[in-house]
Amino acid sequence: MRLVWTTTLILLCTLLISCFATDRLSNVSSPNIIIMLMDDMGWGDLGVLGQPSKETPHLDAMAAQGMLFPNFYTANPLCSPSRAALLTGRLPVRNGFYTTNAHARNAYTPQEILGGISNEEILLPQMLKKKGYASKIVGKWHLGHRPKHLPLKHGFDEWFGAPNCHFGPYNNTIRPNIPVYNNSEMLGRYYEEFTIDRKTGESNLTQMYLQVGLEFIHRQTKAQQPFLLYWAPDATHAPVYASKHFLGKSQRGRYGDAVMELDYSVGQILSWLQTLGIENNTFVFFTSDNGAALMSGPNEGGSNGPFLCGKETTFEGGMREPAIAWWPGHIKGGTVSYQLASVMDLFTTSLALAGISAPGDRIVDGVDLIPVLLNHSHTLRDRPIFYYRGNELMAVRLGQHKAHYWTWTNSREELKSGINFCPGQEVEGVTTHDQKEHTLQPIIFHLGQDPGEKYPLSSHPQSPCSSTEQSQP
Amino acid sequence: MRLVWTTTLILLCTLLISCFATDRLSNVSSPNIIIMLMDDMGWGDLGVLGQPSKETPHLDAMAAQGMLFPNFYTANPLCSPSRAALLTGRLPVRNGFYTTNAHARNAYTPQEILGGISNEEILLPQMLKKKGYASKIVGKWHLGHRPKHLPLKHGFDEWFGAPNCHFGPYNNTIRPNIPVYNNSEMLGRYYEEFTIDRKTGESNLTQMYLQVGLEFIHRQTKAQQPFLLYWAPDATHAPVYASKHFLGKSQRGRYGDAVMELDYSVGQILSWLQTLGIENNTFVFFTSDNGAALMSGPNEGGSNGPFLCGKETTFEGGMREPAIAWWPGHIKGGTVSYQLASVMDLFTTSLALAGISAPGDRIVDGVDLIPVLLNHSHTLRDRPIFYYRGNELMAVRLGQHKAHYWTWTNSREELKSGINFCPGQEVEGVTTHDQKEHTLQPIIFHLGQDPGEKYPLSSHPQSPCSSTEQSQP
Repeated sequence: MRLVWTTTLILLCTLLISCFATDRLSNVSSPNIIIMLMDDMGWGDLGVLGQPSKETPHLDAMAAQGMLFPNFYTANPLCSPSRAALLTGRLPVRNGFYTTNAHARNAYTPQEILGGISNEEILLPQMLKKKGYASKIVGKWHLGHRPKHLPLKHGFDEWFGAPNCHFGPYNNTIRPNIPVYNNSEMLGRYYEEFTIDRKTGESNLTQMYLQVGLEFIHRQTKAQQPFLLYWAPDATHAPVYASKHFLGKSQRGRYGDAVMELDYSVGQILSWLQTLGIENNTFVFFTSDNGAALMSGPNEGGSNGPFLCGKETTFEGGMREPAIAWWPGHIKGGTVSYQLASVMDLFTTSLALAGISAPGDRIVDGVDLIPVLLNHSHTLRDRPIFYYRGNELMAVRLGQHKAHYWTWTNSREELKSGINFCPGQEVEGVTTHDQKEHTLQPIIFHLGQDPGEKYPLSSHPQSPCSSTEQSQP
Repeated sequence: MRLVWTTTLILLCTLLISCFATDRLSNVSSPNIIIMLMDDMGWGDLGVLGQPSKETPHLDAMAAQGMLFPNFYTANPLCSPSRAALLTGRLPVRNGFYTTNAHARNAYTPQEILGGISNEEILLPQMLKKKGYASKIVGKWHLGHRPKHLPLKHGFDEWFGAPNCHFGPYNNTIRPNIPVYNNSEMLGRYYEEFTIDRKTGESNLTQMYLQVGLEFIHRQTKAQQPFLLYWAPDATHAPVYASKHFLGKSQRGRYGDAVMELDYSVGQILSWLQTLGIENNTFVFFTSDNGAALMSGPNEGGSNGPFLCGKETTFEGGMREPAIAWWPGHIKGGTVSYQLASVMDLFTTSLALAGISAPGDRIVDGVDLIPVLLNHSHTLRDRPIFYYRGNELMAVRLGQHKAHYWTWTNSREELKSGINFCPGQEVEGVTTHDQKEHTLQPIIFHLGQDPGEKYPLSSHPQSPCSSTEQSQP
């Protein structure tokens, strides 16, 4: 039903809007900004990035029309600190939104300890307001679930979604299910008014998030006011869900169904921008908050492609993200940028697009990617990537080299209980189950030659003869 | 120099050919056939299949203009039996070209034991001769290195290349280096007249194979005779090599340089077909002989993407191959076929394209893919994939399910000596170092949900709730 409704809406509005949108919006200097942030989706979940099922035609088309960033990273391999880093442009150790209850430990979300993102932090929608941007978050917030920490207290004008993940407690009488808000009004709760069938995986939430996003874009286009849409659906976080139309459609099972629905939704949003004639004036960026949750695989977790381990870890599978920039008329289609980039750059780049200077009273870690976006062969050199767990700097990447100063997957106790951050993967001395320090002699990988972090340089010298004798015809 | 020569050749010939080729060749009923078979190139080595370096623009374009087969397999995870299967359309256990010196063992190439492919076998060029096809093999033969077993004794009209791999003995006074032939004439030897610099990896062999291929296509086009070109360069088999122009160009090191040169060469060949105006009359298929040789990684081995293990094994990394079909005007561009398919199908499909019936006096394992090629949504159901090592049926795939009847990587002795077919990967009870029989209770995987063979179905039930409780936000 909702699909039919969407199509009808698009057709009707084409008639109403097309006659005025194109002309007038060309006068708007600050482009609209849409940041699509997936939840636990892995680098390897996109067809264009090698998912064997090749079930993301809309994202693949987005890449064909835009710029792919195969070296794009999150700032922390966990939902909350990753999202805080994106919205502040700052590393979790700077914005303070990380967990400190154990060394190198990403435990539960920081709001359990800190309450919420600090009021001292300046978030993207607050900054964009200087240039008259209206802003909306659709989906998961995760920067504090108490009323004083919610999105509208941090610069967003509108919100439809939930402050926290949609997993449990489902129907616990002591601790209530997660609420769903429309702006400041609580509409209901997951599993109650907003159903997710735990048995079938059916839920209309992604369709709701899609409709709300389309409606906001439409309204802002009519109002001729530039906008920030932070579109953060959570269907690919366990327990994964999809609407009836998508359930059972994927070769990959329920996780794949959720990916297909999100892929469809991305296609709908881009198509809507074109229908409204604002595609040349809307910068869209698609990415994810951390690597696929391999501990939930294969039924409820995604793929990190050729990379090592997943969510919670500082190996590539935990922090390298699918990333596509789309901006017809500005970004050349079908291009690939090898730039090392980060979710924090979305803060700085968005400000630059709007013509706003970054805050001068604090260190901002994000860099402005516009030179790269406008010329894919341009590279901002000497841009490092920092891999943190909690407040420990576990690893650093510069150019093709990555140095691990600490290695750890998870504890032997967790492993014994069936929780495995690296199922089927074991690299001696690298995927350690104890916290191992290597600061005096870091473990170094060349990620160009060895993106899977399987051959530490120290034990595999660069000599071309070293391994040939072992090979067989 | 050779690059300049190629360009000049193309420009000159455009003038000479374009005036007659297009008109007359449309009358040829049997399309030309080009089979491009790579050596030890992995599924994950192509940009379109998720190689993070995205350095194969020509192959990616070939996929964008043609049909991608993400479920395409070799018939054996080793060069020789794989090539024999392709050219006979029959499983190694039927054509007899496999190694029998140990159970489930792929040891050295079968010609060391058998001499060469049996004269009782009928090879593709012999069959195509019935419809007047001229045939040429360029590159590696590998079906017998003694004079009586060479390509011209098995139906090929022409050959430029070598009977065996180009690895060692380099400069051994007792055992001579591998010879390079032009038809029946030995021109010289690898490392002597046909140099491969063991230190720098520089060699012009791929450029030679390219030029010889282009020349053959040109000559046959002028002669208006349909042709089979079996283009089998070996630059990605250790020790990998590339010409000066490509050395140092890849982010992936020397292996990536070799891939880039092959990618360039594929682009040159497709472009040449267009220049000659015969692209609508030439069926081209690109694939590889077995999975990437992980034991040679990372400097001299490729990537199997998200798949388990590599060459020599019957896990997906050993036998799933990159595969693209290209035939403008007949195959719809940018399509994906999920058909389970095999190198043996290239035999049967080629015959069907030429309008020739498959031999009726023997079992042929290849199937005719034409219905799939002409309609990507068409699927030939109930088509199994058999995974053999030597004469042991190790596993079978039907639909999305794969059952392992035997598991084995390599022996503990080999492992101790540093030879590892599954570096960095270890799936309990699956990547076994002893030969383990599971015929009474096969280990089963759902390859759609779990292409990496990390979660055996028996130990990971399909219940959506099973793993959710373990996941963290």
